[in-house]
Amino acid sequence: MISEKMKTLVSGSSAIRAMFEEGQRLAGIYGKENVYDFSLGNPSVPAPAMVKEAAIEILNNEDSLMVHGYMSNSGFEDVRLAIAKSLNSRFGTDYNEKNILMTVGAAGGLNAAFKAILVPGDEVITFAPFFGEYRNYVDNFGGTLVAVAPNLETFQPDIEGLRNAVTPKTKAVIINTPNNPTGVVYSEDTIKAIAQVLNEKQTEYGIDICLISDEPYRELAYDGVEVPWLPDYYDNTIVGYSFSKSLSLPGERIGYLVIGNKMKDFDEVVSGLSVAIRILGYVNAPSLMQRVVMHCLEEKSDVAAYDRNREKLYSELLKLGFECIKPQGAFYLFVKSPIADEKAFCNDAKKYNLLLVPGSSFGCPGYIRLAYCVSYDTIVNSIPAFTKLAADYGLGK
Amino acid sequence: MISEKMKTLVSGSSAIRAMFEEGQRLAGIYGKENVYDFSLGNPSVPAPAMVKEAAIEILNNEDSLMVHGYMSNSGFEDVRLAIAKSLNSRFGTDYNEKNILMTVGAAGGLNAAFKAILVPGDEVITFAPFFGEYRNYVDNFGGTLVAVAPNLETFQPDIEGLRNAVTPKTKAVIINTPNNPTGVVYSEDTIKAIAQVLNEKQTEYGIDICLISDEPYRELAYDGVEVPWLPDYYDNTIVGYSFSKSLSLPGERIGYLVIGNKMKDFDEVVSGLSVAIRILGYVNAPSLMQRVVMHCLEEKSDVAAYDRNREKLYSELLKLGFECIKPQGAFYLFVKSPIADEKAFCNDAKKYNLLLVPGSSFGCPGYIRLAYCVSYDTIVNSIPAFTKLAADYGLGK
Repeated sequence: MISEKMKTLVSGSSAIRAMFEEGQRLAGIYGKENVYDFSLGNPSVPAPAMVKEAAIEILNNEDSLMVHGYMSNSGFEDVRLAIAKSLNSRFGTDYNEKNILMTVGAAGGLNAAFKAILVPGDEVITFAPFFGEYRNYVDNFGGTLVAVAPNLETFQPDIEGLRNAVTPKTKAVIINTPNNPTGVVYSEDTIKAIAQVLNEKQTEYGIDICLISDEPYRELAYDGVEVPWLPDYYDNTIVGYSFSKSLSLPGERIGYLVIGNKMKDFDEVVSGLSVAIRILGYVNAPSLMQRVVMHCLEEKSDVAAYDRNREKLYSELLKLGFECIKPQGAFYLFVKSPIADEKAFCNDAKKYNLLLVPGSSFGCPGYIRLAYCVSYDTIVNSIPAFTKLAADYGLGK
Repeated sequence: MISEKMKTLVSGSSAIRAMFEEGQRLAGIYGKENVYDFSLGNPSVPAPAMVKEAAIEILNNEDSLMVHGYMSNSGFEDVRLAIAKSLNSRFGTDYNEKNILMTVGAAGGLNAAFKAILVPGDEVITFAPFFGEYRNYVDNFGGTLVAVAPNLETFQPDIEGLRNAVTPKTKAVIINTPNNPTGVVYSEDTIKAIAQVLNEKQTEYGIDICLISDEPYRELAYDGVEVPWLPDYYDNTIVGYSFSKSLSLPGERIGYLVIGNKMKDFDEVVSGLSVAIRILGYVNAPSLMQRVVMHCLEEKSDVAAYDRNREKLYSELLKLGFECIKPQGAFYLFVKSPIADEKAFCNDAKKYNLLLVPGSSFGCPGYIRLAYCVSYDTIVNSIPAFTKLAADYGLGK
């Protein structure tokens, strides 16, 4: 009944999601506290109290027909204006409601962007390691994802690799900073270099290249590191944002797209995105949550809790002899596998109820991803399991 | 920057949505009470009180990480089981959580279904008049929508037209009952005849044909009319449902798909739909609203209010000389335009601040759709405007 292509997608379905289901299975057998599930980026810090307060306030005092009703496909105007003003105060921009489109999470926003700009045969470039779903999102619209090989020293994008990857068929570049899975924040120098290459190539080939910046982890940066605001560096930028991590609302599917004022064909791009949101069946971002986040734009997730996890897990793994770059953002560690076949390593780790995701899922075999958005207790309690695993592989000797 | 195809979509964008924006513009000029906006299927009856009560109860008492967190792509298991049980009690089925997938409204569910089954070049059949977005949903995945011409006497599907439309490339048939835009409920005889044709054609061509039943108006039926449960009549049926109309939650994007137990390749279909929900960027249906609707499955919208609107508007328009089939469900009247060019007629109607949607948007020119999900006062106050319009066209003489 389903298509052959979908059969392939089903059988090769997301390793991360499969791990999530495996975690629930193991928890059923061994008890949740004895399973160390580092597989999924599901925030471990509850939503700020203001989320609940705002939701109850809205339910009690705002017009039900408005709160739960249709609005423009791009979202409530007052919500979009509030977000624009919040961005203006942070980044010195001059946005209004026209620059913002509310989306069904960042994933919904990215799909709407690809729907608006891609035709079959177009190429979209990204930098390994990258969120594996990008391949599916691009493929949804007949595009091909082209991955630039990783720089394993710094995990900053390889600029020469980008230069070589751009062709006349390149329609977009998608980046993710702070990065999933490495936790690396792309530096200002990196961003400037990407912008320069793209501007050169736009002129050389007479094409438009859209830079799509997927920023669900924007607020999760440590040690005071700055995350550059991409539209300041490259005109044809679309920023995709989600409240999944910053407000711990991943299940609610609430995010937005930002289109800078220097975007080429600004009005057409905004209209195209709005139409894409409609015809892909999102229709609009969930209405109550749109109104809730409007009241929570200055709320912060408990970044200190993630930072504590980061420091603990990073230092313990290094002590055990694992190799890993220290992340500056997001809530992931990208650890070098002791053996080249990191899938085998992840399978071995399951013996100790450690759930890790193979780097192949991110276009970077030989590494594993740990999502440390878990309780601190889970971190502490997992160390003996990691110790045994390290010993099995003769690490730290 | 956007694709040529998207430019075409933007310029020919939804007439219904354009009308919605026009309505807001006119309301700004003449005052909301002086604009008779019959353009959009935005419920006029507020959500049942239980929606608010359940939401507040959940926010106050359930674990925030669970309520707002990720779950399986197909939705919370307890929510799906509750829906399955509710369907079992109504239709005598034997469903459990495996038969149900929570979706981002019916539109999200339909897109997931098409993503799972279509390959470029496939054909999907529907019956005119039909919800115009079907064409976009099918096109999203490279399919072609084939519309069977309307039976203007009854607006029941034309069975011989269906028989002639099926080809070896037919992958699905999508129907919508109670119907938007006619309000007609497809009769049991119609459903049996559709099932018979599809079964014959499956055998004749050695193909699988999926019947997709889009049922957002299931609960909105008048005069005690029965809406047949499609999976009882045809094995390869997917039912798409939405709480948009039944609980007046269109902005919340919450619905579900039902896969009957006799569906061919049941497990593969369910897995394919789950993957489609993920990779189309929905990821999952909004989490809080999933939990809210679980408590509202036996709640009903105020059907009596819509019924009152229906009787009033239908009888008044008939008195004025308009021709219209009496709807048995949904909240639309499908009125014959006094002139063949119904777009011109709709434009004329704007003179009197009457916002109507041309039948061309539903593959049925020469007719106009009125959404009577408005206040009763709007119905009453609009009659003088309709009277003037009828007079302009020499009706009722």
